[in-house]
Amino acid sequence: MRIEIVAVGTELLLGQIADTNSAWMGEQLAAAGVASHFHQAVGDNQARIVLALRTALSRSDGVIVCGGLGPTQDDITRESIAEVMHVELVRDERIIERIRTMFTSRRRAMPDNNLRQADVPVGASIIEQTRGTAPGLVCPVGNKVIYAVPGVPHEMQEMFGRAILPDLRRRMAEAGEEAVIKSRVVRTWGASESGLAEALADRVEELDDWSSDDGSTLTIAFLASGIEGIKVRLTARAPSDEVADAVLADEERRVRAILADRLGDIVFGVDDQAMEDAIAGLLVARGMTLGLAESLTGGLIGARLVNVAGSSTWFRGAIVAYDSAIKHALLGVSPGPVVSAQAAEEMATGAQKVLGSDIGLGITGVAGPDGQDGQGPGTVFIGLSLPGSEPLSHQLHLPGDRDRVRQFSAISALDLLRRALLAGS
Amino acid sequence: MRIEIVAVGTELLLGQIADTNSAWMGEQLAAAGVASHFHQAVGDNQARIVLALRTALSRSDGVIVCGGLGPTQDDITRESIAEVMHVELVRDERIIERIRTMFTSRRRAMPDNNLRQADVPVGASIIEQTRGTAPGLVCPVGNKVIYAVPGVPHEMQEMFGRAILPDLRRRMAEAGEEAVIKSRVVRTWGASESGLAEALADRVEELDDWSSDDGSTLTIAFLASGIEGIKVRLTARAPSDEVADAVLADEERRVRAILADRLGDIVFGVDDQAMEDAIAGLLVARGMTLGLAESLTGGLIGARLVNVAGSSTWFRGAIVAYDSAIKHALLGVSPGPVVSAQAAEEMATGAQKVLGSDIGLGITGVAGPDGQDGQGPGTVFIGLSLPGSEPLSHQLHLPGDRDRVRQFSAISALDLLRRALLAGS
Repeated sequence: MRIEIVAVGTELLLGQIADTNSAWMGEQLAAAGVASHFHQAVGDNQARIVLALRTALSRSDGVIVCGGLGPTQDDITRESIAEVMHVELVRDERIIERIRTMFTSRRRAMPDNNLRQADVPVGASIIEQTRGTAPGLVCPVGNKVIYAVPGVPHEMQEMFGRAILPDLRRRMAEAGEEAVIKSRVVRTWGASESGLAEALADRVEELDDWSSDDGSTLTIAFLASGIEGIKVRLTARAPSDEVADAVLADEERRVRAILADRLGDIVFGVDDQAMEDAIAGLLVARGMTLGLAESLTGGLIGARLVNVAGSSTWFRGAIVAYDSAIKHALLGVSPGPVVSAQAAEEMATGAQKVLGSDIGLGITGVAGPDGQDGQGPGTVFIGLSLPGSEPLSHQLHLPGDRDRVRQFSAISALDLLRRALLAGS
Repeated sequence: MRIEIVAVGTELLLGQIADTNSAWMGEQLAAAGVASHFHQAVGDNQARIVLALRTALSRSDGVIVCGGLGPTQDDITRESIAEVMHVELVRDERIIERIRTMFTSRRRAMPDNNLRQADVPVGASIIEQTRGTAPGLVCPVGNKVIYAVPGVPHEMQEMFGRAILPDLRRRMAEAGEEAVIKSRVVRTWGASESGLAEALADRVEELDDWSSDDGSTLTIAFLASGIEGIKVRLTARAPSDEVADAVLADEERRVRAILADRLGDIVFGVDDQAMEDAIAGLLVARGMTLGLAESLTGGLIGARLVNVAGSSTWFRGAIVAYDSAIKHALLGVSPGPVVSAQAAEEMATGAQKVLGSDIGLGITGVAGPDGQDGQGPGTVFIGLSLPGSEPLSHQLHLPGDRDRVRQFSAISALDLLRRALLAGS
């Protein structure tokens, strides 16, 4: 099964946005064992979209076309697919009703333009819209298929997982191509990509020649994820879902043990678990509450914590003391420089007191571009106050611009808290 | 002159990296007035690279192929171009010497693999390498051309500017095609894409047939940007940079006037200006400071505001009162439900008082998945207290999951503040 991705939008050709949708779908297709030999991008022009789709159908078994399903005049993916299928577009009353309901629930009237989103090529079936107004389309072309999805990433991703992937799996099963490919990502923070690769080098080599009795194979890859740490991706190819899961669970245990032995507490989660999920798990298990005192991060740490559903049981709140006067007046930070270890510790104990939390986490530093209190950009102090202990602090020197310094500061502070909770358990 | 970009590398198809090279080149080509109707990505496979190049030559006047010029066995762009040209590869001694010198200057011996980088299709000329070991290639194919450049961004960019762009300009001048294409993005918040399209429909239609005395043309397109609003992109094609700038400035004024007339104060900036930049500009102009009281957003609004360099002059800080007890104790919110208009207003005045700011902005609501205080997920109240006025509040019903509700809440609150500052000026 070979699928070609066609991204539609003049803004892609003009380089106004990078085509991250195609990269995302490419990754998902690969993980599902679907080959993708070509990607194309094309502008908002019907003749060219038609040519791109015909080119794709001539050299692949199916096409995912992404974008151009919006309500405006330059959204012409529907018309282009109908031309490729040699059929008419028919307006679907049920889709109109669904779009109208969406507008009504937002207390707005549906503009007439949105009616275009209810146009469906004859013979196509729809992928019901749940997030945006545009439905997706599944369009048979001979024995091949064109899937159409909106270009808005979260709409595309939801439809891809709900409708396209299952349909592809069904087609692969019919063609007798099914092998299950599953991945599990072990998430780490605090080690370099080359450090991880070194720690796991022997295991990676062993797996090159390994296959289980039932023919399963395993690979390990490393993916840098910016400030969110390095991901260790385990990929199993196996005869069934159950076998793949068992192989992955076994390998996860092994990888965790190797990493813990060589590099310490660097694993904070698997797959979609973020650093804040790790914190939530630890705090809930201990029945403890947390309060923050943020300065350079401006609320970023709090904003990450409330990502976790149920955070209200353990997250009390934060004092964002961006102005120094607020650090002194509200948090009781002593007079003097506010970019210091002492200020970070006093912010942590201040947060505990003012917010009535068991634990206080404070952070102060210089995001740049200018220095402050004799400290250069990238200098950050994290203070942590745990119940029944003296507050402690940790100094960081972070690279990068203003935004990266703040992002790194936030996750560094959360990781410090994570390790302290683990150590105290 | 229509140029197609072909990016070579299996890692692009697998989504291991996003294709930022094509976006960069697309932007450069557009700015130089070169049309680009298609981009392709293809893996490291000779038959498929040849097919991609032939496809590109069949529908464009020239091709830039990027990547696959390295020294390893999977770098086969040179072989593929030779196949398309129906010629042999010949090893160029001067290129070998240049590569050898590069290794010598780094005190290393040249591996034999690198000899492959000296292979040149008969009839092609080279773009001398100055940063990496691979030279670029300029390969005539009939009256069309294939340019080949390395995939390493800084090598590609240097060769593009030094050799490809001048060569394209020469070809366009010969064909009498020289023009400049420039864009400006007008950023809006609070109107739907179809609403904007309706408001500007007459102008979009007018522009279809419009060209100025000097032959400039203009187009208008709409781009949804998730929670960051809808972008209206103005693109001018003009004989010179100066004319393009003048045409865009004129059109920006016209579009702003139409939108203000039909849809109110929906324009908050142009190009890279974000909502927080608009807030910063308004507060600095008025010499006012801001304090926040955040609940469901957990610090997200503060984190956005400190994105703006110089925010310390006008941003005092925030009380993130996630726990209701903190709303009552610290911000002076009256006993009773905390998801209410009254609570939002009291949070705003509480922030003013506790943080000593001129303006207080408060936000409370239900992110979900569960309801609170008899209110369902997506119900949000924003409170605003301006100096010398009674506090006011605004109720929202927002769609989407927990994360989207919080993101929408944050930008909605900032937009409310923006409009209030504009109205009060």
